[in-house]
Amino acid sequence: MPHIALPEELPGITAGFAFRPDTAKPMRELAHILLHTSGNDAFSSRDRELVAAFVSSRNTCYFCQTSHGAAATHLNGGDTDLVDSVCRDYTAAPISEKLKALLAIAEQVQIDGKRVTTGLVDEARYHGATDLDIHDTILIAAAFCMYNRYVDGLQTVQPRNEAMYREMGRHMAEEGYYRPSETVSRGV
Amino acid sequence: MPHIALPEELPGITAGFAFRPDTAKPMRELAHILLHTSGNDAFSSRDRELVAAFVSSRNTCYFCQTSHGAAATHLNGGDTDLVDSVCRDYTAAPISEKLKALLAIAEQVQIDGKRVTTGLVDEARYHGATDLDIHDTILIAAAFCMYNRYVDGLQTVQPRNEAMYREMGRHMAEEGYYRPSETVSRGV
Repeated sequence: MPHIALPEELPGITAGFAFRPDTAKPMRELAHILLHTSGNDAFSSRDRELVAAFVSSRNTCYFCQTSHGAAATHLNGGDTDLVDSVCRDYTAAPISEKLKALLAIAEQVQIDGKRVTTGLVDEARYHGATDLDIHDTILIAAAFCMYNRYVDGLQTVQPRNEAMYREMGRHMAEEGYYRPSETVSRGV
Repeated sequence: MPHIALPEELPGITAGFAFRPDTAKPMRELAHILLHTSGNDAFSSRDRELVAAFVSSRNTCYFCQTSHGAAATHLNGGDTDLVDSVCRDYTAAPISEKLKALLAIAEQVQIDGKRVTTGLVDEARYHGATDLDIHDTILIAAAFCMYNRYVDGLQTVQPRNEAMYREMGRHMAEEGYYRPSETVSRGV
């Protein structure tokens, strides 16, 4: 049961968003930019969602790990093995050396930003990461340390329902995160 | 030296914000709502800044702890002892029982949202905290786990300059965090 009077029919972060639409707006916008609109050939939305799912798995946030894992899976043609292997041991996952190097940075940010070393950044750059890729990796990892704590700190309802997450992941992957209609649906 | 090519003359988070103004916008907006415009008699901007400084101190983020500590100090008539005592041992600080109970929640969120217990929430409610106060405390603590990691993960320049933080704190306390002119100043 949530710690405060959240709309209980809404899962995970969507309940917090409905409780306070004005803080939801910038939180959605940040995710939309980082995960959805910034994706390109060099650092795709699939890879950004993998970073989000990976950091969420390190924070053991079931809702975020599963929903962003589902988004990454959708962007990967429905192959669920990829997300599992990245969360289990990204160094052995079938991904580029560049993404492994970015995940190594995200891994440290999840613990403490000060653990990001020049060596880790040089390694990412060696494999082709730009300053923007490195910036976005650090900010995605940092932002999920916020989203995860928000979801778990409120003790939101996090259903065990594979089909729900699959549909949620599809929607996130295709439409992104910014829904100006959010506040309207609450009647404000 | 920052890990990526940030404008080095800018301290702390302002360098990251200048590097990517489109992600800066929602990050500023979230802080503006949580710390500046939501402050009221029941949960003031001073108390919200104290939560921000406290969480930043637990994350040992010098820039955020010092700047938000300076904002709290400004809102407290210039008395620096209050911030120091809250960061050292909030249970013994000269603050309300309600704020102590909210800081106890923030203390757990900083580690992991799942550590927020019904007992901690009941204690806050007993001392007069509303659902909104509890929501905002959880989100401020969660958000500073993002800001702190962003500032430290980029290895931003964090000057040791008391006067600079005092002026920054005054500005944050009086004007807030939302600066629509941010993108203009970068010429985009």
